Amino acid sequence: MSEQTIPGRVPVVQKLLTANEQVAADNREYFAARHVTVINIMASPGAGKTTLLLATIAALPELRIGVIEGDVASQVDADKIAETGTPVVQINTGGACHLDAPMIRRAMPELPLDDLDVLFIENVGNLICPVSFDLGQSYNVGLISLPEGDDKPYKYPAIFEAVDLVLVTKLDLRPYLDFNLDRFTELVHGLNPDAPVLCLSAKTGEGLGEWLRWVKTHLG
Amino acid sequence: MSEQTIPGRVPVVQKLLTANEQVAADNREYFAARHVTVINIMASPGAGKTTLLLATIAALPELRIGVIEGDVASQVDADKIAETGTPVVQINTGGACHLDAPMIRRAMPELPLDDLDVLFIENVGNLICPVSFDLGQSYNVGLISLPEGDDKPYKYPAIFEAVDLVLVTKLDLRPYLDFNLDRFTELVHGLNPDAPVLCLSAKTGEGLGEWLRWVKTHLG
Repeated sequence: MSEQTIPGRVPVVQKLLTANEQVAADNREYFAARHVTVINIMASPGAGKTTLLLATIAALPELRIGVIEGDVASQVDADKIAETGTPVVQINTGGACHLDAPMIRRAMPELPLDDLDVLFIENVGNLICPVSFDLGQSYNVGLISLPEGDDKPYKYPAIFEAVDLVLVTKLDLRPYLDFNLDRFTELVHGLNPDAPVLCLSAKTGEGLGEWLRWVKTHLG
Repeated sequence: MSEQTIPGRVPVVQKLLTANEQVAADNREYFAARHVTVINIMASPGAGKTTLLLATIAALPELRIGVIEGDVASQVDADKIAETGTPVVQINTGGACHLDAPMIRRAMPELPLDDLDVLFIENVGNLICPVSFDLGQSYNVGLISLPEGDDKPYKYPAIFEAVDLVLVTKLDLRPYLDFNLDRFTELVHGLNPDAPVLCLSAKTGEGLGEWLRWVKTHLG
C-alpha cells in the first residue's frame, strides 16, 4: 500500500507549488493590464521597510501609491501608512513566515488598482522564506540594514540572488558600525552581478534620491 | 478515491511533528544525563548572536562551552567560534529556515558532550520559524537588537511567548536610535510575564554581567 500512496503524493506537492505560481501569474496579468508597477520589498525584521515606504510616499506626491503590509500579527505598520492617506491593506499571516500569491489576490479588491501607479508590497520580516513565493510582482527589492552586518550574503544567498535591487538602509548609523560596504557589494555582485547596490538613510534623507530615481525609471 | 486518501494524509503530518518532538525528547535526555545545559538562541539575522557568544566565551573561561551554529549557508560563524578554541559544529540547513531536533542529533557526536557544562545553539537568523521546533534545549533565549525597533513583540509574538529570557543587544547604539525600552519591556511582559528583559552591548561589555550571571545560575 505504501508503494501505491507514495507516487500519489508527489503530484499533490507539485500541484500546490503550481497553484501559487498560477495565482501569481494571474496577479501579474491583472497588474499589467492596469499599468501598476508592483515592488515586493523583502528584508529581516526591523531593517526599515516601513520607514523607507513612509519616506518614499512623502517624497513622491506625484505618484499614486498603494501599499500591502505583510506581518505575522498586528496592523501597526498599516496604521502608519494609512496616516499618510495612502491606500493600504494589512495582511496578517497568522504565523506563516511569508506572503504568497493567494494572499495578495485576496487583498487586491480592497485597493484602487485602476488608479495606482505603484503598489509596494512589504513582505513579512524574514530573510529566507519570502523569496520562494512569487506574488506577481514586477520587481524584487532586498533591504539590508547596516547593523545587520556585511556578511549577510554569505548566510542568506537566495535573497540576494533573487532581487533586482539591493538597498542598504540606516546609513546614518555608519560612523558607529564596522560595516565594510566594499566587501558587502562584492559579495552581492558575486551572487547577482546585475543588481545595483544603493545606500540610504530614510531618517536623514541621505541617498534617498537614487532610490526614488530607480522607482521612477521602473514604472510600467 | 480522494475520500480515502485525505484521511490517510492527516496521520502522516502528525507523525512528522511527533518525529521531531521524539528526537527532541531523546536529545534532552542525552544532555541531561551528561549535565549539559543547552541554550537555544533565537533572533533575526544580524541581531548579534555570534558576537554575544564570542563575548560570553571570553568572559567565562571557567565554563566548558560548546557551540552549534545554524545557518542556511556558509561556515563564517563557526570559523569565528573555532578561533577561540571552543568546540563548534556548523549546521547548514541548505535553505531551511530553522534548525530541528534531528539536525541537532546528527551534530551531537561531533561535540565532546561528556566534557561540556553549556552547549549554546545559535539557531538560523529568523524571528518566526525556529520557535516551532523543539531541539531538546534546556532554555530558549531571544535576542532583539536595538536597531530592530521596539515594536517587534507586536509583529512576532510567538518568539516572545516562548523564551525564558529576552536580551536587548547593541545597547551601545542607544544614543542614535528611538528605541523605547519601557514600551518594549511592557509589550514583552504582556506576552510573557515571567521572562526577564536584560540589555547589553557585547561590543562595550555594558550589561554583559547580568547575562553571564543568568547563564551561571541556570547551569544544570
